[in-house]
Amino acid sequence: MPHVQITWVEGRSPEQKRTIAERVTQVLIEDGRAKRENVHVAFLDVPATSYAEAGRLVADQKRSP
Amino acid sequence: MPHVQITWVEGRSPEQKRTIAERVTQVLIEDGRAKRENVHVAFLDVPATSYAEAGRLVADQKRSP
Amino acid sequence: MPHVQITWVEGRSPEQKRTIAERVTQVLIEDGRAKRENVHVAFLDVPATSYAEAGRLVADQKRSP
Amino acid sequence: MPHVQITWVEGRSPEQKRTIAERVTQVLIEDGRAKRENVHVAFLDVPATSYAEAGRLVADQKRSP
Amino acid sequence: MPHVQITWVEGRSPEQKRTIAERVTQVLIEDGRAKRENVHVAFLDVPATSYAEAGRLVADQKRSP
Amino acid sequence: MPHVQITWVEGRSPEQKRTIAERVTQVLIEDGRAKRENVHVAFLDVPATSYAEAGRLVADQKRSP
Repeated sequence: MPHVQITWVEGRSPEQKRTIAERVTQVLIEDGRAKRENVHVAFLDVPATSYAEAGRLVADQKRSP
Repeated sequence: MPHVQITWVEGRSPEQKRTIAERVTQVLIEDGRAKRENVHVAFLDVPATSYAEAGRLVADQKRSP
Repeated sequence: MPHVQITWVEGRSPEQKRTIAERVTQVLIEDGRAKRENVHVAFLDVPATSYAEAGRLVADQKRSP
Repeated sequence: MPHVQITWVEGRSPEQKRTIAERVTQVLIEDGRAKRENVHVAFLDVPATSYAEAGRLVADQKRSP
Repeated sequence: MPHVQITWVEGRSPEQKRTIAERVTQVLIEDGRAKRENVHVAFLDVPATSYAEAGRLVADQKRSP
Repeated sequence: MPHVQITWVEGRSPEQKRTIAERVTQVLIEDGRAKRENVHVAFLDVPATSYAEAGRLVADQKRSP
């Protein structure tokens, strides 16, 4: 532990995930007393038709002017 | 908040998700004191070989008469 | 399935959860082709010091004027 | 209940998931007082670029000698 | 990985969790090509007023004859 | 989005969570194209008898010399 689950709309590159995983792990080591080898980070990529904010799909938000 | 995660077997259309996200958000506003802009709903679609009920994959249930 | 996980700050009553669970289940039956007996809803209540929006704990938001 | 969510890097076959779902369900019945029909197991398969251990993507671990 | 999250109604003892964690880990090693040191299991215990099946709280199910 | 769920053994202070939430949000803005107001972070604190690594409860690991 800790286990980190990040759910968001797909579209981030492996490079972005690589950087985010490393930085989030570092934050948990520095401020959360975590041991590096026990930190797990999983990214759950969902299509823009599978995430809604304020009751509205992200896919539909994009169509807004 | 709240954050809602709905895990199910793939196959629902964007139209169904659009309706469900809006209705679930409305329920949380009316009965859960949530503010609309803070309600997030994520759908996690998994194949029928990735969800089991009663120890049996949904993919296998479909083969039942 | 589906499995619904609702994460929010604690403070809702059993009555509110009862109503929300019933209504969300009904939505999934009507608009998501779910069978009633297979719908599960879990509420994860966390303290206001365990949920952040926009980088700020809900506990700290409450102190805002 | 219980609801079991297993997040891992993709690559397991339906046969493996079938066996794991059945065995995990059996464990929860025998040692967790669960009723078979209420046990749900969901597998969340993510690409090797979406799971990090110790701050390092699994995709990058594979490149290690 | 894998990361296993088990959500259920509170009431299981540490002894039960100890056994279940060990057995589930063993299943994932034997049938899921997991390495022991990378398997994480988290139990999310919720009160009987925070889990609903078929639209009905477990707390209310208990009152059934 | 994104929604971040951090599951770990209880024991971190509100101050630690405040710092981690702010820093993780910052990472997602800088490297994940997230908008600040849409980033949610939830901490799921579980007792040391509810988290296992390598098949062993954290509560039991502490007893190791």
